[in-house]
Amino acid sequence: MTSQPVLINGQWRASTGTETFQAINPATKETLSEVYPVSPWSEVEEVIDAAVAAFKTVRSYPVGRFADFLEAYAAKIELKIDEIVEAAHLETGYPISPRLKDGEMVRTLDQLRQAADAARNQTWSLPTIDTKTNIRSMLGPIGPVAVFGPNNFPLAFNSISGGDFAAAVAAGNPVIAKGHPSHPRTTQLFAEIAQASCERSGMPAGFIQLIYRTSHEDGAKLVAHPKLGASGYTGSRHAGLVLKEAADRGGNPIYLELSSINPVFILPGALEERFSEIVDEFTGSCLMGTGQFCTNPGLVVVKAGDAAEEFINAVAAKFKATPAGTLLGEGVARSLRAGIVAIQQTGAQVVTGNEPADANRCSYANTLLRATGKSFIENPAGHQEEAFGNASLIVVADSDEEMLAIAEQLEGNLTGCIYSNTEGTDDALYDSIAEELRRHVGRLINDKMPTGVAVSPAMNHGGPYPATGHPGFTAVGIPASIRRFASLECYDNVRLHRLPEVLRDENPHESLHRDIDGIMTTDDVK
Amino acid sequence: MTSQPVLINGQWRASTGTETFQAINPATKETLSEVYPVSPWSEVEEVIDAAVAAFKTVRSYPVGRFADFLEAYAAKIELKIDEIVEAAHLETGYPISPRLKDGEMVRTLDQLRQAADAARNQTWSLPTIDTKTNIRSMLGPIGPVAVFGPNNFPLAFNSISGGDFAAAVAAGNPVIAKGHPSHPRTTQLFAEIAQASCERSGMPAGFIQLIYRTSHEDGAKLVAHPKLGASGYTGSRHAGLVLKEAADRGGNPIYLELSSINPVFILPGALEERFSEIVDEFTGSCLMGTGQFCTNPGLVVVKAGDAAEEFINAVAAKFKATPAGTLLGEGVARSLRAGIVAIQQTGAQVVTGNEPADANRCSYANTLLRATGKSFIENPAGHQEEAFGNASLIVVADSDEEMLAIAEQLEGNLTGCIYSNTEGTDDALYDSIAEELRRHVGRLINDKMPTGVAVSPAMNHGGPYPATGHPGFTAVGIPASIRRFASLECYDNVRLHRLPEVLRDENPHESLHRDIDGIMTTDDVK
Repeated sequence: MTSQPVLINGQWRASTGTETFQAINPATKETLSEVYPVSPWSEVEEVIDAAVAAFKTVRSYPVGRFADFLEAYAAKIELKIDEIVEAAHLETGYPISPRLKDGEMVRTLDQLRQAADAARNQTWSLPTIDTKTNIRSMLGPIGPVAVFGPNNFPLAFNSISGGDFAAAVAAGNPVIAKGHPSHPRTTQLFAEIAQASCERSGMPAGFIQLIYRTSHEDGAKLVAHPKLGASGYTGSRHAGLVLKEAADRGGNPIYLELSSINPVFILPGALEERFSEIVDEFTGSCLMGTGQFCTNPGLVVVKAGDAAEEFINAVAAKFKATPAGTLLGEGVARSLRAGIVAIQQTGAQVVTGNEPADANRCSYANTLLRATGKSFIENPAGHQEEAFGNASLIVVADSDEEMLAIAEQLEGNLTGCIYSNTEGTDDALYDSIAEELRRHVGRLINDKMPTGVAVSPAMNHGGPYPATGHPGFTAVGIPASIRRFASLECYDNVRLHRLPEVLRDENPHESLHRDIDGIMTTDDVK
Repeated sequence: MTSQPVLINGQWRASTGTETFQAINPATKETLSEVYPVSPWSEVEEVIDAAVAAFKTVRSYPVGRFADFLEAYAAKIELKIDEIVEAAHLETGYPISPRLKDGEMVRTLDQLRQAADAARNQTWSLPTIDTKTNIRSMLGPIGPVAVFGPNNFPLAFNSISGGDFAAAVAAGNPVIAKGHPSHPRTTQLFAEIAQASCERSGMPAGFIQLIYRTSHEDGAKLVAHPKLGASGYTGSRHAGLVLKEAADRGGNPIYLELSSINPVFILPGALEERFSEIVDEFTGSCLMGTGQFCTNPGLVVVKAGDAAEEFINAVAAKFKATPAGTLLGEGVARSLRAGIVAIQQTGAQVVTGNEPADANRCSYANTLLRATGKSFIENPAGHQEEAFGNASLIVVADSDEEMLAIAEQLEGNLTGCIYSNTEGTDDALYDSIAEELRRHVGRLINDKMPTGVAVSPAMNHGGPYPATGHPGFTAVGIPASIRRFASLECYDNVRLHRLPEVLRDENPHESLHRDIDGIMTTDDVK
């Protein structure tokens, strides 16, 4: 059977690889018909060389060209929405509506357009001009970026249409997309549109490229390659840390978005005040998308008492009453079960679930576990095993001190949330937990669940290790996410006509604030 | 003999270590009298615990407190300038004037005060507010920072008074200073003043601490420690990469400023136009401070011809006529010689030098090497061995293409410089070399030598690996250098009174620009 072509240096062509793979529809367990290649190292090297050549070419492009490409791409995607979401539906089991068509697709287009705006207005580049010394600096593109997309967002985090892709391109970098093998057709469709948009916008061959899969060893060699600028990876902790080690050794930045259990502390006064709302919000957040969100609330901490028992009972009832959703694949179901069993082995009890659901599709029963605060504190790592999917652990702490001690033992997470009473009865406890929790999370949330990551300039979809590889960066939120794929360029005594546009005396964009002699201003240099 | 005390958790006390060391005056090779301890791991752990406790305490401090401390510290240093520069003179062999008193000390005080301003005005924190989603974010302190100072800047890069120290404190982080063993007395004097300033400014015990030396293993454990926020290291590539590997494995950011040979391309038209000036500038830059600058021009590329030969002869004459300066120690002299020999073994020839200078002090003859462009291109790594000190390699390229090929083979460097004719005769060659060179350096310079790193907001004292560990950051230049020691803090739906001051509706500083709904403004949130 002929395998699908890869996109290398502007050409769709047969892979030289001999290994192949096929995607599976998790809603039916049927193998999908298209066959995709595993690219060998020689092919990866060709991709790198083409990206390097493209980078040399685009370095002299006006920044508007990258914006034009991103906008043209978004416009062309809009013409093929139905085809893309249908492919994604088959490959992920996610419903077409609202999830794919009304949620992720809208977000994907919005991200591409926000990135286009940022590419054009250059705010992300932080231009800084010192007229006394005639030293001028800005953030500029870092070089070819390899993007490894995850399984759980086939559109909005896709390696060739998602947040990392948009950020890398907005900075002016070629992208080497390494598709996720669970949704190759979706990725291929995006790449076809992206390549057509590249040609239309005058981008060179090799500016965007797509391979579907490599061996683990070749993935590690790619991120460590001396000609690569940086990598973005979203996925499992294990695979991510293998790539991080390789990239670190090669001296290449790699931005990771790994596991996170997103602790939620529900303080006693909040439970008393808003019991039903919190039960609904938690259940909805935990089971939405079959729990397959990076910010799924996998750990809830409550204080022992009747209200806590009622909360657990109410949540368990909803978990039982809600049909188990479809998981992204058999592998996801297996590791969900393994995560649940690992948590159970630390001394947690299953309240409901922990059994297969529908044998005809990839699924597992909605699972609720409970553990004591004492048990958590005795084995914090064990209780923080990620069970990615429709499962959560409720820890019942005996005292305020135990709640705080749990916060102290948390690993790095993307988010941490505290529900507290609106009249102030929880305020003392809030203050002590919040101060501790903040240091373990990228985004501190009040009174709502962590799922739902707005594409806002103020968003932080990042956090302390091992949620990511560096606590100063975010994967979502423009312009900050663009700065990951940048290097600091400094021009010292460089003749004015040789400078990049944003560092010249005349400000090229009326809305662009530049630091001139320590003052933020939209003025020209005088 | 009693060894000097270490500063741990606010107390000057005897180290529990049994190993000791003494500094040597490189100008006389005499061992200095004070004895300093090597701190064992148990002591390093105490330091970490105290820093963690201090971090918890200062998290609730108003940002002005850090500024007050930095300013008080600078003011107290000013009262002891003579004592400090005398100690540094004995430990480094640098002249008191102008180098230490009029150069480094002035810079040190300026840096501390610039950092104080930045701590107060908070521009470095990039506050970003999205009123529609009520998500607000900023850069905040990353946690305890370990600073490893280098041998070559006993004041301005000292682990407890230099740029990394000032940046880490300005962000609100406790600092664990690991002094450089070649100038312990200088470091101790700074630490005494710093601790007194801490007490005066109401900073908690453990906010700044000093140990002089650890084993290499314990240094690696320190940077990898899960309770550490980040590290800053300036020094040799070998030791730096060992620390980087440890920090990377531990998931901790480490900012490195490693070796750099700072290539200088002198284009034919420039040599024709400004021969004598360039000879003087190069010789001065190369031999200044006995060549012991991070930005010392260790590699010069010229185009073959009579002018190139005359240039080499003129430089060689000046190298011979200038007395060899004192090096920082016997180790520096040994590795300088080893670097020269390594370059020689690649096929370079010694034009002058490469022999011991004055046996009564740490020194080595001013050394000039030359090689062909062909030889460089055949073994680029060998020709880029760092010979840290008063030595430089001139590469004579046969053609424009060979000059460009040399640029393509450069490792990551802090700086790269091009001299070109002011009438435009070199412009075509400039354009091709500059575009290539820029990707290999942090700071691209025109028509002047790389030494002299202004403390300017626009400065980049950073560059691609292996000059540093990440091309997006700079060790010099406020506010950017502060952002290294920061994590991104995001507040989602957090009640207004619980927010950090810079994220509240009211702008606390009239000069602080905040991104509110995508617009940079000094206004309050409406």
